[in-house]
Order: sequence, then structure tokens, then C-alpha cells
Amino acid sequence: MSADRIIQVERDILGKNNKLADNNRKRFRADDVLAFNLVSSPGAGKTSLLVRAVSDLKDSFPIGVIEGDQQTSNDAERIRATGAPAIQVNTGKGCHLDAAMVGEAYERLPWLNGGVLFIENVGNLVCPAAFDLGEACKIVVFSTTEGEDKPLKYPDMFAVSALMLINKIDLAPVLDFDLARTIEYARRVNPKIEVLTVSARTGEGLAAFYSWIRKQAAKMRTASADAVPG
Amino acid sequence: MSADRIIQVERDILGKNNKLADNNRKRFRADDVLAFNLVSSPGAGKTSLLVRAVSDLKDSFPIGVIEGDQQTSNDAERIRATGAPAIQVNTGKGCHLDAAMVGEAYERLPWLNGGVLFIENVGNLVCPAAFDLGEACKIVVFSTTEGEDKPLKYPDMFAVSALMLINKIDLAPVLDFDLARTIEYARRVNPKIEVLTVSARTGEGLAAFYSWIRKQAAKMRTASADAVPG
Repeated sequence: MSADRIIQVERDILGKNNKLADNNRKRFRADDVLAFNLVSSPGAGKTSLLVRAVSDLKDSFPIGVIEGDQQTSNDAERIRATGAPAIQVNTGKGCHLDAAMVGEAYERLPWLNGGVLFIENVGNLVCPAAFDLGEACKIVVFSTTEGEDKPLKYPDMFAVSALMLINKIDLAPVLDFDLARTIEYARRVNPKIEVLTVSARTGEGLAAFYSWIRKQAAKMRTASADAVPG
Repeated sequence: MSADRIIQVERDILGKNNKLADNNRKRFRADDVLAFNLVSSPGAGKTSLLVRAVSDLKDSFPIGVIEGDQQTSNDAERIRATGAPAIQVNTGKGCHLDAAMVGEAYERLPWLNGGVLFIENVGNLVCPAAFDLGEACKIVVFSTTEGEDKPLKYPDMFAVSALMLINKIDLAPVLDFDLARTIEYARRVNPKIEVLTVSARTGEGLAAFYSWIRKQAAKMRTASADAVPG
């Protein structure tokens, strides 16, 4: 088959996804829900971070989670153990969540009015970068064990993310991990990316992450208020 | 666009790739070259392992390396620093190497007659599973920092790999890493998968990996001798 035909098919798929992502975004806005799309390599610690964040924040505002994995419902079960609702999506051969999957899963969550939706994508630093799910922004979770060069080697993902959470910071002393260099590389592909260091294991840095979430919520509500004259 | 059309396009792409992979396989066999396709998450340590393996083995037989990354030629440069030839392939938006890329890169390497070709795929536990490059077998590099559940969550990759190299075994004591459970999960999706524990940093376990490579070479040569009556 021709390269032109492949490119056309890719455009069709992305075009269809973008329409559904816009629908999701409108739905989230109507429900006053702040949605984050968490992306990372496999094993960077997205689920462990979410388990802690959901436990710490669920008494402050409604929280729902959509979990994406090729197989298993382990992650949704880990979230549900905190008492928060979680829907598992299995992508099978698929390497990323798409807007249709998220739209369907969102229907099955309770009403999150005034709250936060965390979407945990399939662990993959390539494909999820291209698919808008209707989120307010992407958060890339990067762990200290992965090596400083990853933002340069997988630039698309760092270019489309608003925040880089550098996880497993408690392991930095036993690794040869260079924090300053990692941040420098990430800012080379995305000068505006915000950076926080955290440890899902020890809890270090999580308070700053929660402040960041509250700041995003305030921004969203200000923008909505501006859009609707009183 | 219809789901049927997407499936047909996927079949066309995989069918074309399989033909080119067969060509590569014939070419490797004609050159008496043993080819391995190394797959993993980003940051599992494929390049660090290769740098050590190439340094330790390059005086025993010819070695060439094909390096796949979305961006940068850092990895090929790291391999070349050992004195072995390496070709970098940048996949751009692509999430895996394909047989055409490998066939073209192989042309640019010196003749590896009687030696080994290491193909380091893009760090991604999903997409490279579906693409045959003409290799003798896939080796999945899995690091102790990624968590025991990855073989269940990304089963395709572990199902198609002949060997699982569990890397960063030197970090196991500082993590809550359960080796037995990891192996049990990997064998649940692939009962035949072989397992070796290694550390690219300390060198632990590498001698056993080199023995495994020599065993594969002996097997390949026995099979070739059987195929050509003397």
C-alpha cells in the first residue's frame, strides 16, 4: 500500500478523535470537571501516585479515575480500594487511550461536579502524545530510574505536556541521576513545561502537586466565569 | 472511517512488513549473522547493556548494532565509543522499528559474517511486539524499577519474546521488588520464556547472558548445517 494512503488513514483517525475529544471537553466543562491525562513509560509510577493523590484529596472534592491498560483491571482495583470510583479500559492490541474510550468510560462514572477526573493512559511515551482525550492538560510522569535523556529521545510527549512530575525522587541518591540536566532537556523541547519532584512511596513533594491541581482548578473556573457574562 | 477499513490497512501494513522481515531473515542467514531484537520500556537499560556486551564480546566475533529512537543519535554514539559499528534510525512520529528500516540500516553496516547483530528497538512495550524485523528472536529487557505486574499488563511483548533479561538487579534490595512473582507473571503469558537477571551497571549476570548468546549461535549453526546436506 502507498505511503499516501497510510498518511490519509492516520489523518482520518486523528480527525475523528479530535472531534470526540472536543465533545468530551465540552462535557467536562458543563459538569465543571477538571480532567488530567497522565502519561508515562510503563512503571513510572502513575498508579501509585494516583492512589496517594486520590486518598489525600477525595474528602475535598469529587474524584473519578479512568484507567487504561492493554490488559488487567489491577489498576482500577487499586484506585477503588481508596473508596474513589474507577473505570478500567482495556485497549487490547491498542497502544493508547482514545477520546471515544474516555467518553464511554466517563458515562459510567458518578457525577463529578466541581471535581477532578484523572485519566491514566497506557504506559507508552510515544503514541498517547498524538491523541487528545478532551483533557485540560497532559501530565507526564517521569521516574528518576529512566535516565536523563528521555525528553530528548521522546520529545513529542514532553512537548505536549503542561507538567512533568519527576517521580521516585527518593531513589535519586542511589542512582546517578542528574535532576538539573533532566529539567534542561525537558525545557529544550518545551520551554513552558512546569516541573515538580515527587515520591509516591514517601509522599515527598505531593503537597506541591496538590497546590498545582488547585491552581489549575482556579484557572479553569476563572476562564469559565469570563466566558459567561454575569 | 469504518473499523473494517482500519483493520484492512493494519493487515496491509503488517503483511508488507512480514515480507520484508523474511527478506532480512534470509539475508542474515546467508551472511551467517545471528540477529536479536531488543525491546523494553524507555529507560530499562537496553543501551547500557549493549555497551557492556559489545565491549566484552567484540574481540570474539563481529558485532554490529542498529539503534532505533524517535529522535537523537545518542545511542549509536554510545555504541560507537566501544569501537563497534552502529547505525542510528530515527523513527520521528513512529513508535517502533519496521523491517524496511532494519533492511536499509543493515546495508550500511560492515559485513558481520559469523557474528551478531543487535537491533535496539524504540522503548515501547506495545507496538514493537507486532513487527517482525527478521530477527532470530526478541529479547525483552525489563528493569526491577518497573514493577512486577508489567508482563500481565503488556502481555503481547512478553508472549513474543524468547528471553526476559531482568536488568537493574543491583537495585532490587532498595526496591520492594519480588523476583519470583515477576517470573511467575511472565511465564503466565509465555510458559517458555527464559529468564536471566543482570545489572548493566555492576556487570552481575552478564557472563550467563553471553553463554546464552553463544548457545543461540550454536543452535542456529546446527539448524543451518541440517538444512544443507553435506
